[in-house]
Amino acid sequence: MASVSILELDGALVATLQGELTDGAAVGLQQDLAEAVVGVGARGVLIDISGLELVDSFLARTIYDIAAATSLLAAETVVVGMRPEVAITLVELGLTLPGLRTARTVADGMALLGIASPNRSAEGR
Amino acid sequence: MASVSILELDGALVATLQGELTDGAAVGLQQDLAEAVVGVGARGVLIDISGLELVDSFLARTIYDIAAATSLLAAETVVVGMRPEVAITLVELGLTLPGLRTARTVADGMALLGIASPNRSAEGR
Repeated sequence: MASVSILELDGALVATLQGELTDGAAVGLQQDLAEAVVGVGARGVLIDISGLELVDSFLARTIYDIAAATSLLAAETVVVGMRPEVAITLVELGLTLPGLRTARTVADGMALLGIASPNRSAEGR
Repeated sequence: MASVSILELDGALVATLQGELTDGAAVGLQQDLAEAVVGVGARGVLIDISGLELVDSFLARTIYDIAAATSLLAAETVVVGMRPEVAITLVELGLTLPGLRTARTVADGMALLGIASPNRSAEGR
């Protein structure tokens, strides 16, 4: 079963993806995030995919579309926690997601967004 | 009914779009803005589309053309107040408007242009 949670953290949205997302859930995530970016006035979106063992081409494209929509809404997207096997699969699929920013951890992602993380122990909030 | 108003604000032009713009009105806006940028010596143009529930591909291209013309006239364009559903539609249409700057509010847009915003509480939030 797939699950997605969206939390607000210091002016950014953190979307945590778990399990296998259906295509419908991926599209729903795109809409939810776009509305949340405007709703809370977020400066950035972190998409935490550390819980995903597999990213198929549909999800990769959806993440790319989320980044494009977020950019139009004056916020920035960072993909966080990609596993090595996912990175290799994406490259094999030709989906190198040019222009998309990545970070190893949520804290690194927050720093990339220019949002100082006051306390690294707050990461798991 | 569509309406467009152009105001001068601290050396910038603020074009506010309401309702559904005809293609002719969009082209007229492009000409009016180009003349106004030179006429008042504007440093930037804010295009406020917060009143638009829909941006079709013609209007998106026109906004992009306005930004290009404004840039040639030594001013900068910021698109302000895009709604989430508009962002998603533009991405679906493949119109990610690369290089175009966006801001959430007129005040944020003025800040992006380097024009100090006198009062952030005027943002409307």
